[in-house]
Amino acid sequence: MEIIEVHTKSRPSTVYCGEGAAQAASEYLRGAQAFVVTDTNVSRLYADTISRLFPGAPACVLPAGERHKNRTGLFTILGKMLDAQLHRPSVVVAFGGGVIGDMAGLAAALYMRGTRLVQMPTTLLAQVDSSVGGKTAVDYRGVKNVVGAFYQPERVFCDPVFLNTLPAREVRCGLGEIVKTGLLDEKVGAKIRENADKLHELAFLQELAADCIRFKAGVVERDETESSGLRKCLNLGHTTGHALELLCGRRSHGEYVLIGLWLESFIAEGEGVCEPSYAQEVRSLVLRALPRIPRFPNAAEGLRFALLDKKNAGSGVSFILPKSRGAYAELTLPPERYAHYLNILAEERQ
Amino acid sequence: MEIIEVHTKSRPSTVYCGEGAAQAASEYLRGAQAFVVTDTNVSRLYADTISRLFPGAPACVLPAGERHKNRTGLFTILGKMLDAQLHRPSVVVAFGGGVIGDMAGLAAALYMRGTRLVQMPTTLLAQVDSSVGGKTAVDYRGVKNVVGAFYQPERVFCDPVFLNTLPAREVRCGLGEIVKTGLLDEKVGAKIRENADKLHELAFLQELAADCIRFKAGVVERDETESSGLRKCLNLGHTTGHALELLCGRRSHGEYVLIGLWLESFIAEGEGVCEPSYAQEVRSLVLRALPRIPRFPNAAEGLRFALLDKKNAGSGVSFILPKSRGAYAELTLPPERYAHYLNILAEERQ
Repeated sequence: MEIIEVHTKSRPSTVYCGEGAAQAASEYLRGAQAFVVTDTNVSRLYADTISRLFPGAPACVLPAGERHKNRTGLFTILGKMLDAQLHRPSVVVAFGGGVIGDMAGLAAALYMRGTRLVQMPTTLLAQVDSSVGGKTAVDYRGVKNVVGAFYQPERVFCDPVFLNTLPAREVRCGLGEIVKTGLLDEKVGAKIRENADKLHELAFLQELAADCIRFKAGVVERDETESSGLRKCLNLGHTTGHALELLCGRRSHGEYVLIGLWLESFIAEGEGVCEPSYAQEVRSLVLRALPRIPRFPNAAEGLRFALLDKKNAGSGVSFILPKSRGAYAELTLPPERYAHYLNILAEERQ
Repeated sequence: MEIIEVHTKSRPSTVYCGEGAAQAASEYLRGAQAFVVTDTNVSRLYADTISRLFPGAPACVLPAGERHKNRTGLFTILGKMLDAQLHRPSVVVAFGGGVIGDMAGLAAALYMRGTRLVQMPTTLLAQVDSSVGGKTAVDYRGVKNVVGAFYQPERVFCDPVFLNTLPAREVRCGLGEIVKTGLLDEKVGAKIRENADKLHELAFLQELAADCIRFKAGVVERDETESSGLRKCLNLGHTTGHALELLCGRRSHGEYVLIGLWLESFIAEGEGVCEPSYAQEVRSLVLRALPRIPRFPNAAEGLRFALLDKKNAGSGVSFILPKSRGAYAELTLPPERYAHYLNILAEERQ
């Protein structure tokens, strides 16, 4: 089991990654007043595991799915916390994927102005990305993550045992953030290129998970609240990814990130941010993870959502674009120019 | 105009206190994208002032009153912030009393995980206490301030010009926190004793305001998030005050604090925390601010609310009690023992 420390200004956070992490969580919380937040999918598979790991802890089971990441879900958790008579020293355990981590994390941040928080991610996406770094949020009025807080979990326990039950779609979802990390961090990038044929094997993805967390921890330590600009690099592929996610909303977050990376490689190339050969390399890598980029006949409408995004203060649309292996660049485009690129997604492809 | 720096870990905060503070706010925000949150009472009196101080800034006017400090109010603000297309560098201006400061502060903390925040308190209570220190919250399911965050305003502008239109009830409300501060800080305490006959004169209260802010700033700097225990001292009188406020809810927060201080002087005396003569001094001081302590026939029911309070982890009820001039002590009572004291409020008095 690997132990990764995240030294942020607000509070230290420690990530346990590997076999045995679930048991370590159980031992860590022995004697504490734990409160488990999970969803119907996870509960169906792991209700017994939860009872065994956290005996006697009350649980709040939310309906599964991204579309429930809203204020109703948030206040359902807060209400159950009141029912359970939690206080500040109580520990919220976010047991599930990214949606549960985001919502339970925000509830922990807000209840009595902050309880203790432990993340126990059960999906590849949550293990390699969203459980680390303290971003919590719910969507509101069609805008993703617009109501939230930076709130570091004191511990994150990433146990690969939960990945065995993941549907292929959820694995692809995690792949989105792994491929993104590979473009930002050349250590991860080289490993992916050298093992591109293993990109759908859980054993290899588990190995990458710790590398991804280590990279993200380094970024978050230097820019916890996205104020210096460094943390923005983690949004590679996300401007388009988020816009399409809001426009269509059927695929997983990670798939939209992959589609975003694919499209934004054309922007990087077209705007002279990277060489055409590197843009091609990026697209090939994306296609290893997601063999077919779907067609979006109404892609240009995504512009509306991109303009609402919190990264896009002012009148343009901002991107973090791939520049070369392990390097990125920031670019802001006028809306109409971005619409032109979005149309690539609307074109017929063979 | 006095300038008081509050050096907290999360972010520095500066308080401007005195004539001209409103104009200073206007100058400070020139060129920024300001967004004003206020209520119907304040707007009726100061709509023109707001337009003059912050020309062109969109405003969100909430219904006035403590009972609107809830999630509906919070999401009304967040929705209007989306309508106004605010981004992180935008500035929320909380223009009003404690309720507006708490709600607008929480909205600023949550919108896009945090925008800029300026507090512009217009009541005595907000000027001497609630606008400083970064506590933000809404009530939920009958529990006061149970959903909130610590979020420091970058600037607080306390201009006495707004106090001239305050109804007597609102002045008494501020007096609650001033008297409380006088019991915790002997510098303020001595000033109050020496000028007890001026306790309802605005000029004197304005003079005390800066002293109160300076004292609170010192406490908040040393314990921003109530983790070391020091900040809890600010809850003197509040255990009973909050419980009665939730039970009855007709008087102002500050009046309940005064009633709480009065009752808790009996607890301090009865439990041997202070000398009877000092308990008598505390009650005399309270009666200078609030000449008549009302009778609460159902006072014992307040116990239920006291047990829900976030300060009362575990099975007892915790108090910060007056010990001697400028000194306090913490005490936890079994619920039934507290109920016994609460009955003092139910007794007939002449």
